[in-house]
This record gives sequence, C-alpha cells and structure tokens, in this order.
Amino acid sequence: MDNQKNREIRLKSRPVGLPTSDNFELVETTVPTPGAGQVLVRNSYISVDPYMRGRMVDRKSYVPPFQIGETLQGHAVGQVVASNSPAAKVGDFVQSMNGWREWYVADGAQVQKFEPAAPIQSYLGALGMPGMTAYAGLLRIGALKDGERVFVSAASGAVGSVVCQIAKAKGCYVVGSVGSDEKAAYLKSLGVDATINYRTAGDLTAAVAAAFPEGIDVYFENVGGAHLEAAINNMRVGGRIPLCGMIDMYNATELPPGPRNLAMAIGLGLTLRGFVVSSHYDMLADFHRDMAKWAKEGKMKWRETVVDGVEHAPEAFIGLFKGDNVGKMVVRVGPDKAV
Amino acid sequence: MDNQKNREIRLKSRPVGLPTSDNFELVETTVPTPGAGQVLVRNSYISVDPYMRGRMVDRKSYVPPFQIGETLQGHAVGQVVASNSPAAKVGDFVQSMNGWREWYVADGAQVQKFEPAAPIQSYLGALGMPGMTAYAGLLRIGALKDGERVFVSAASGAVGSVVCQIAKAKGCYVVGSVGSDEKAAYLKSLGVDATINYRTAGDLTAAVAAAFPEGIDVYFENVGGAHLEAAINNMRVGGRIPLCGMIDMYNATELPPGPRNLAMAIGLGLTLRGFVVSSHYDMLADFHRDMAKWAKEGKMKWRETVVDGVEHAPEAFIGLFKGDNVGKMVVRVGPDKAV
Repeated sequence: MDNQKNREIRLKSRPVGLPTSDNFELVETTVPTPGAGQVLVRNSYISVDPYMRGRMVDRKSYVPPFQIGETLQGHAVGQVVASNSPAAKVGDFVQSMNGWREWYVADGAQVQKFEPAAPIQSYLGALGMPGMTAYAGLLRIGALKDGERVFVSAASGAVGSVVCQIAKAKGCYVVGSVGSDEKAAYLKSLGVDATINYRTAGDLTAAVAAAFPEGIDVYFENVGGAHLEAAINNMRVGGRIPLCGMIDMYNATELPPGPRNLAMAIGLGLTLRGFVVSSHYDMLADFHRDMAKWAKEGKMKWRETVVDGVEHAPEAFIGLFKGDNVGKMVVRVGPDKAV
Repeated sequence: MDNQKNREIRLKSRPVGLPTSDNFELVETTVPTPGAGQVLVRNSYISVDPYMRGRMVDRKSYVPPFQIGETLQGHAVGQVVASNSPAAKVGDFVQSMNGWREWYVADGAQVQKFEPAAPIQSYLGALGMPGMTAYAGLLRIGALKDGERVFVSAASGAVGSVVCQIAKAKGCYVVGSVGSDEKAAYLKSLGVDATINYRTAGDLTAAVAAAFPEGIDVYFENVGGAHLEAAINNMRVGGRIPLCGMIDMYNATELPPGPRNLAMAIGLGLTLRGFVVSSHYDMLADFHRDMAKWAKEGKMKWRETVVDGVEHAPEAFIGLFKGDNVGKMVVRVGPDKAV
C-alpha cells in the first residue's frame, strides 16, 4: 500500500442555512500503515445522513459537534486489507464510524465485523442504523398496534420506507408523504395504501384528512413544520407521534415556529416522543430477526441511491435536503470487494 | 319553595378573544319543583375553570360546546333541600355538573352524594377535579420519580398548587412560575423551593436555567407559549412534559406559534403528553387516599379565591385569564348549609 493515495472530506467551515460545497474540503493523503494491533480498511460505501447537519453546528447535543479542519465521521462499510490484529483478518467485512474517507487504520477492536447476508451497502440503510431507527421508533416509541392507521413523512427515505413496510407487515393502513410522483410510485410498489405528494397537494391538512377519514393513530415524524401541524389536525384520541427527525428545520437560520395546534394534544391525549436510535440498541437482535423474516416473506424491500466517488459525498449530503434520494443515500468510495 | 327565585347564567354570545360580560346573561327564573324520582338542590359553590373557555367555541372537542341561550354547565356543590328520590335525602351534600345557577332539580341518580371531610368548596378544588388533574397528570402522565426536578407553570392555581405539593411530598426539587410576588409568597408558604415571577423575570429561558442548573425532569404545562419554549430549552435527557392546559392560548384569536425548539425533543428523548382528567378516574381511590394522608401530615394545603354571588360568576371566570385567583376560583351562590 506504500504511497497509495487516500482521499477524505473535511469540514472547511460551518454551514449557515443549506450547506454548500464550500463548506467541505477534499483532501488527499497517503494511505496510512497499520501499527501494532491495528487493521487497514478500505471503505466500500459511506453513509450521508440528515442528522449529520446537526453535528456541523457548534453546540452541545447528544453527539459532539464536528470540528473544522477534521475529517467528517459517519457510518461506513468496507473490508480489511491488512491486519496486525487478531480481532479481524484480511478479507473481513467491517462497519465503523470512519466514513467520509476511502481508507483508514483503526484498532482491531474498534471495527465491527459482520457477515453480509445482503449487498453490503444495505448495512448502511435498511439493515443498519436507519432501519433500526424505523424499528425502534415505530414499535417502541410509537407503540404501534396491529391494524392501526399510520402516517409517515419523508416516506420514501431510508427510515420512512422501512417504517411503511413494518406497518404494512403489522396489518396497518399506511399513507406516506413524499415530494415526487416517482417516489409515490416507489411507495406503492412497496405496498403502501396511499401517498400524498406534499409539493402538489395544496392544503396539507385537507390532504391528510382525505387520506385518513377516521384519523391517524401513529404519525411517524421525519419532517416537522407543516407536516406536523397537518398530522396533529388529524390525530385520533390517544394517538402517538414518534419524533424521529425534523429535516425541514435542520437548515433554518432562524428557528421556525412549532405547530400552532399543539394544544390539541391535550383534548386528544396525544403523545409526542422524541428519540435517538442509540438509546434502543437493546432491540437489535429483535430487529435483525424480524427484518430477516419480513425480507424472506417479501414484505421488506429497500433500495439505495448511490453516488459515486468520495469527492461527491458533499453533493450527496446536500442532496438529502433537496429530496434527491429514494431510499438510503450512500456514496460508493471503493470496490464492493477489495480483496 | 313556591315562587322562590332562582338565578342562573346563560351564554349570550360566543366570545372572540378574552370573554367580556356581554357574552353572558343573568336570567331570573322560579325555583323548579322536583318531580317523581327527582331532588331539588340548592348550590353552595360553583366552579369556574379555564377549560370552559374551550366549550364556548362551537367546535368538535372532547366535551360538547355550550349552546347560546342555554344555562352554562360546570362543577357545583350543594345540598338537597327536597327529595322525591330514595337515592338522596334532604340534607345530603351533592356534587353535580349543574353549576352556573343557584338551584336545580335533577334525577336522584344523577347527583353524586359525598360526606364532606373538609369545607365543601374544597371539593371543587384540591379535593375535586383540579386536584385529581394534578395527581393523574404528575404521577401517571408525568411518570414522576421521587427526588426529580419539577417545574410547574400557573403554579399557584387550582391545579398547579396541588402539583407543587405532590412533588414536594415525593421529595422533589420544585420551582413554580407565577405572575405576582403575592403568589410567589404563597407558593413559598407551601414549601416550594423557588419561584419565578414571569412578569418581571425578563428572559424566561435564562430564568428557568438559573433555577435549574441541572435541568428539568418534569415540566407540568398549564400555560403554553413562552413557558413551554423556556422549559424545553432546559429539559434533561428523558424529560417528560404533561400537557394539562395552555391558558395563554385559550383566548387567542389567531393560533399562536408552537414552541420553536420542539426539535430538541428528538435529541433529548423528551415525551410531551396531553391528557384530560376524565380518562384517569381509575386513580380516584388512590387520589383520595393520598390526599387525606398528605393533608394529615401537613404536606397538602389549599385555598380558594371566593367571589360572592352567581351574578358575578362571569367576572370570576374572566378573572382566571387575568391571574385574579390564588388557588381555586369558586363562586359562592348560596349558604354553606341550606338545611
């Protein structure tokens, strides 16, 4: 590997509003040599996720902020190409938080080996953190019961598309909100009962009411803003709203107003509950078991939007906020199989 | 009782914004004569409550709207003065929803007898619906644990003052928000650890932060608006916000914006949960048992703001939104003991 080039993306400046390519810097380095106890990994796919926008702000949060001048972090899948560690051997597939780069060295104990039972990029999406987010958010935070009425925003995304299919597997009536007819068609192909294109639907409260004449039991919140207000206007007594994300707000330069109708939560006995997936990894074995079962039964499908080249990772990330992705957005930064 | 005069308050017009006396009509009638199976009751005290503002709007809600030209309804305590029913005899103390009037007849089965163990107006306040609201809201909806940090808005009111004392009885650190120094002094006399006078505190988020250097576990929400936003800014991970009322919004002619910082609920894993007390009467026996115990131990005190005369009930009601009351606002419409 001597003198092999590595490329990585560093945070150049903190975004104000929607990030631009100027906030990122592509840096070329030399692939490092693994020391004692270390492994050298070549990443195949790296993840870009909406939550990373929050880490670009310098503030106290549940994950520490990214630092200017440092390589960004995020989920990645790759393969061990050299090893000085008994924990992982050459050829092992590994996951890590060392994304936004092509190569890295790490202590053998700090990468997580896995046996791919599906294309490896799946482990950044439906079979990884976003899928687990959908699972914990819908079943534990949303306390979904079989046969309920479920509304999902950002429904064709990495999390939303899994939420929709879990709800369908549980015999629910499911409506997804999306931003294009192409995404609506994709959702229909997954078995979702109805879709709302929020860009063309006009009055969102009325559109949601038309889709839910009997109201909503669980609204899975990925968006915030008008979506949350429209959902609250249509909730049933005892309804639950897992707060997973509010992508509409991540790039706001001024805090936008919250739902004007929040007081309706009193009379309706609604529960709005925020969560981060890291608090719910006790459900991981259940998640893997159920996802394997549903996939086998044809009830769980997924796809990725793949952008090629680590140099395009910033564009892929920015594209998340423009709705460029169907399913999980990933960046291919190396071959699927490096050795 | 022949030709004895009864006075009652009817809804004359639906309020827009803060109600005015013009929205109400005092009507003089003749005390009715009880028919077969009926009782005649003379009310001693009637209740005015913030939630009644919602019933003055013509909309679908968890309680049906008041109708124009009809006598208003609400909790009342009084005494049976004539009876044709085996269910209640002359002299029995009874509760009902036949408030806003001096006298009424009802089927014997439709009034609720009780044995006063405290001044009867207490059964409209700390020992009645507002006390039960505090109990269910803090312990079930708020899932309070001993020793937690509790913030209460409208803290000297009928519900808030009971919330504060339950939390103190559970060994919690308790801070109440009030609108006057007199109310703050009252709360201190109840054992509350600290108070915030929101009218003079300036930046409410900073004032709450100063009172809660380690953050808030449970915020009991009676107010909405700036209070909710300030509380969310200071919540601890896993915090809970029972949504009991949002009195700041009840008279709004346009829906005011919700909390701009609601997205913080995601990272902090907050739960916001609305409730109405009528869904929680399975806790009634526990409530009575605990309140009697706490009162005996000197841990639960209460007082009422008493307005005299049914003709002043509209002013008493309007006064709720101006902060005229300390503790429960009631209207004395007859003698404590009628027979």
